[in-house]
Amino acid sequence: MNENRAVVLLSGGIDSATALALAKVNGYQVSALTFDYGQRHRHEIAAAKRVAESLGVEQHLFFPIDLTPIGGSALTANLKVPKNRDETLISRQVPVTYVPARNAIFLTVGLAWAEVIGAGTIFIGANSVDYSGYPDCRPEFIEAFQIMANFATRSGTEGNRIIINAPLIQLTKAQILQEGTRLGVDYSLTLSCYDPDDQGLACGECDSCIIRRRGFEAAGLPDPTKYIRSVGAGSGR
Amino acid sequence: MNENRAVVLLSGGIDSATALALAKVNGYQVSALTFDYGQRHRHEIAAAKRVAESLGVEQHLFFPIDLTPIGGSALTANLKVPKNRDETLISRQVPVTYVPARNAIFLTVGLAWAEVIGAGTIFIGANSVDYSGYPDCRPEFIEAFQIMANFATRSGTEGNRIIINAPLIQLTKAQILQEGTRLGVDYSLTLSCYDPDDQGLACGECDSCIIRRRGFEAAGLPDPTKYIRSVGAGSGR
Repeated sequence: MNENRAVVLLSGGIDSATALALAKVNGYQVSALTFDYGQRHRHEIAAAKRVAESLGVEQHLFFPIDLTPIGGSALTANLKVPKNRDETLISRQVPVTYVPARNAIFLTVGLAWAEVIGAGTIFIGANSVDYSGYPDCRPEFIEAFQIMANFATRSGTEGNRIIINAPLIQLTKAQILQEGTRLGVDYSLTLSCYDPDDQGLACGECDSCIIRRRGFEAAGLPDPTKYIRSVGAGSGR
Repeated sequence: MNENRAVVLLSGGIDSATALALAKVNGYQVSALTFDYGQRHRHEIAAAKRVAESLGVEQHLFFPIDLTPIGGSALTANLKVPKNRDETLISRQVPVTYVPARNAIFLTVGLAWAEVIGAGTIFIGANSVDYSGYPDCRPEFIEAFQIMANFATRSGTEGNRIIINAPLIQLTKAQILQEGTRLGVDYSLTLSCYDPDDQGLACGECDSCIIRRRGFEAAGLPDPTKYIRSVGAGSGR
């Protein structure tokens, strides 16, 4: 077990890019793990590659796991991504973009890889403040996963527990953006949109785009996102 | 949520076949889930198909998840499967056939599918008595997974918890075989061997073959396993 080595789950969005930067600034040698899970917003895989190259990683594993046979989500099945939702609803309901047990699946694969490469920590960019209503982004999920992980692996059984580190779990999107900016993250490389166009431009209207844009506004930072068309300030419409 | 619908993790071996038979006799409509994970003993996928057809299932999903990029196991990497090990060692060490976090990965995918199809229970054939030293076959792992699962999913959050049922967890291999035989499981359809030949015949010498053969002996049942060559009674070398 190498205490200085960490697996970072890297989706290509704001949160995981910031988690990667935090891992780096804390001295970890990073093995980035990106899932190709049949997501409709496949441009995020290219974004993850850009972010990893920009911040520097030891290795980057693109792990294919096609979740489309499981279905049940607007991100992996033929359901419509909601647009321009009432912002007061976004954090109060589990949306149709919820992918069943996604973080649990990604963390278990990350756990397996961490055990094999001897990484003592797994970073995940989950956050529960502007978390869009996903159950598997809450602190209680991360805590329960940690306990399960200790029992699930040889290393955990032998006392070499792999730590699940969710450094953003209590931060707002604005705080995440401020922290990442301080650490030199280039957010123009990231992609948050659930429904980008063929060029990877953001729609500006899905929950993820709305949360992202409000985050830049609240952080007092310029929004470097490349939108399909110019998104007006104000209502998001 | 359909309380009568269950996902059964079906590998094609003795334990999962018995778990499927138990689910059926308890009145569940079964959705079988088999993983094609790059295992060297790929004949077990065909065995899972035979078992599902023999016992009857509503649907059978073969889920591809290639764990070979993760490696770290004699079952998914280019490591040698141990043969004719000292039987007193088999349950005392985690063997090289351990696949890191395998049951956690399989259960999380099962959890996602159960949530989508509305299955209230997941059956897993894990057992901890003749369990070959795998950490993720112990009752404490199953219990920790249950708690994590409640937090990981929308259904768990909304009070519709998906139950992880490991009905064999406290049974010996002999007890499992006796129970399955009583329920009409045809164990000649199953495959346990980690290193079968091209025809799917069992080697008779790996840990899994040894545990299986001893199980039939202890249960007082004829061993229907098709071995590569006749395996002598006695010490197993």
